[in-house]
Amino acid sequence: MSGRVKGFRFAGVHGGVKKGDALDMGLIAAEQPVTAAGVFTMNRVRAAPVVISERRLLGGSCQAVLVNSGNANACTGRQGREAALALTRATAAVLGVPQALVVPASTGVIGVQLPGEKMMAAIAPLVDDLSEAGAARFSRAIMTTDRGPKVARAEVKVGWTKCHILGVAKGAGMIHPNMATTLGFVTTDISINRTTLRRMLVRAAEQTFNRVTVDGDTSTNDSIYALASGAATERPVVEKSAAGGKFADALTEVLETLAKKIVADGEGAEHLVRIEVQGAKSDGDAVQIARTIASSQLVKTALHGCDPNWGRILAAAGRSGAGFNPDHVSVKIGQVSIFEDGVPVMTAKTEAKAASAMKRREYAINVVVGRGRGLGHYWTCDLGHEYVRINADYRT
Amino acid sequence: MSGRVKGFRFAGVHGGVKKGDALDMGLIAAEQPVTAAGVFTMNRVRAAPVVISERRLLGGSCQAVLVNSGNANACTGRQGREAALALTRATAAVLGVPQALVVPASTGVIGVQLPGEKMMAAIAPLVDDLSEAGAARFSRAIMTTDRGPKVARAEVKVGWTKCHILGVAKGAGMIHPNMATTLGFVTTDISINRTTLRRMLVRAAEQTFNRVTVDGDTSTNDSIYALASGAATERPVVEKSAAGGKFADALTEVLETLAKKIVADGEGAEHLVRIEVQGAKSDGDAVQIARTIASSQLVKTALHGCDPNWGRILAAAGRSGAGFNPDHVSVKIGQVSIFEDGVPVMTAKTEAKAASAMKRREYAINVVVGRGRGLGHYWTCDLGHEYVRINADYRT
Repeated sequence: MSGRVKGFRFAGVHGGVKKGDALDMGLIAAEQPVTAAGVFTMNRVRAAPVVISERRLLGGSCQAVLVNSGNANACTGRQGREAALALTRATAAVLGVPQALVVPASTGVIGVQLPGEKMMAAIAPLVDDLSEAGAARFSRAIMTTDRGPKVARAEVKVGWTKCHILGVAKGAGMIHPNMATTLGFVTTDISINRTTLRRMLVRAAEQTFNRVTVDGDTSTNDSIYALASGAATERPVVEKSAAGGKFADALTEVLETLAKKIVADGEGAEHLVRIEVQGAKSDGDAVQIARTIASSQLVKTALHGCDPNWGRILAAAGRSGAGFNPDHVSVKIGQVSIFEDGVPVMTAKTEAKAASAMKRREYAINVVVGRGRGLGHYWTCDLGHEYVRINADYRT
Repeated sequence: MSGRVKGFRFAGVHGGVKKGDALDMGLIAAEQPVTAAGVFTMNRVRAAPVVISERRLLGGSCQAVLVNSGNANACTGRQGREAALALTRATAAVLGVPQALVVPASTGVIGVQLPGEKMMAAIAPLVDDLSEAGAARFSRAIMTTDRGPKVARAEVKVGWTKCHILGVAKGAGMIHPNMATTLGFVTTDISINRTTLRRMLVRAAEQTFNRVTVDGDTSTNDSIYALASGAATERPVVEKSAAGGKFADALTEVLETLAKKIVADGEGAEHLVRIEVQGAKSDGDAVQIARTIASSQLVKTALHGCDPNWGRILAAAGRSGAGFNPDHVSVKIGQVSIFEDGVPVMTAKTEAKAASAMKRREYAINVVVGRGRGLGHYWTCDLGHEYVRINADYRT
């Protein structure tokens, strides 16, 4: 039973959103109202469940999360909003909890109405399926075109008590735009107040989920939820304590693991690459440079071809908007130095070495842009034929 | 002789930068110093010729432009700067004009030093090759992986006199990053002062070259030069006159034709698509939305697959940073309405119609985002397997 998060049960059933009999509805339910926080997409076009969840989480409390895959309930107008409200109302009724404590999340095709009746009929079986060991089924129920479920765990000791964190996620940005969106769900049995939880979630997401790109497209449904039952500990952890620090680190680690799994699962991706920028004027500048390199179509196709094409890396950095002196730039791929103080140092031998480093499943590209203290990174993947095949040949 | 631009001669020779015997050095020379203006890349990493040209054009006057393809002379440090200076010095000597009136431009692989000696030996033959009919050879000499030369012409009547504009360009943004960059050269025999020419060039470039994307990567070498000999007319055209207006329109038309040729020639591109945005709060917002849609990897792969995937279009618009109400959005592909006032209106029949419109070589996608007066457009192309093949398999 080790690793279970006390106070939560999970479920996953087939509700008829996806074809066949794949799991497509998931539920997380707590024994009693728990501390809750969420971070949501910055896209102006927001799915109905995003709008509803954000409003319901304002109070910092929640008792259940109802998720479906196969349909994003985005761009569905009033009918979509009403369907999401009706489904959470039904879930609340079967669970016997207030409707305002049930939040919805959806992922899948954009612009198609939810199959409301089928889903309504699946609410009772879904609640029946709830169990403490149900996280595996839940993690499969939220998948769209993911290669597999994405789960991460961590433990934190508060005094003598072992507390648990369990994170489950799906997708990556808008890599699967018709099977849209990233969703992340973190449960923990630590005790924490809502302001602290929210602050730690925002900070951890900024360092992890906000540092990955597959194709630069922000979806209409991106959401991360964090729920803390407090079932393992009595006293809430506070921010500037040893336990608080350990919890924040563990939360970041869980989200980092999930975020990396998401990029590694980018459609057709063969390489997971960390773009590491140092020496910028500020951390913000460093992240901006890392983001621009990580999002460059030309860099990503070069990653696919295992081509140590530093010219593309420099050109992307140069258009990032961040200030730096090109004469102070150095670039390493893996451990191989290919550009130093503004001048290429690549010989046939180092090129072969760099190309070989790029054949690895996971590696880093290190870019030093000056002598400043700014640090930042981004995770990206390569852009290959498989990506084009999946995204061009997909029919709405 | 119709269409010739009085006061200019053009040349193109093989100087040994490219392999084989392809033309790789071009020259434009004027009989006497002419009014000149330039617009240059915003990339912080700038090639040596960009830095030199910008400084030399500050005076608003110029007599020759020396161009090479096959090597961008970017990221080449002090040696690259000295090579560019030496080449313009030699050209100036052979032409018998002041060195400061010769501006350099380069396009091609980044980070490799120019073959200076070979190029130096080609300066005399290049000057010998100058002729009034040499624009065709010049246009081929500046090509890198372009499918063909890109030339556009226009005529403007000033009083009873016919004046000419000739534009020549190559490449597209950073579609060919190792064969990098867009270069554009406009010559005209109209008489105009430098401030007016510069203002009109900036405005025309903003409406044309700054409204195209192939892969979102701004190069280290992008430059457009405009040279006006005044050989056809005596009195300078002024901005707020009939002739001034006609010249500004013709200049924009020439740059528009070149810019469209550049996108249509995007590596592997099969479709040239105009993203047209209306109803935004301002023109700036409209352009920002159009740019984000035009640059979206997911939209571009859908264009490749002829998939009327409005969900991706909306999601891209939503992350553009411009404000709009998703409930007021309508989308048309070609003439086919697929999304109206925030709700999809696509049936099997309209989807088939839209997909069929997308099979055309050139078409428009019209996005209305509200009731504002803001208008803007962007030209883009599809992202297909050929793009990945060329850019992944290319070795530095």
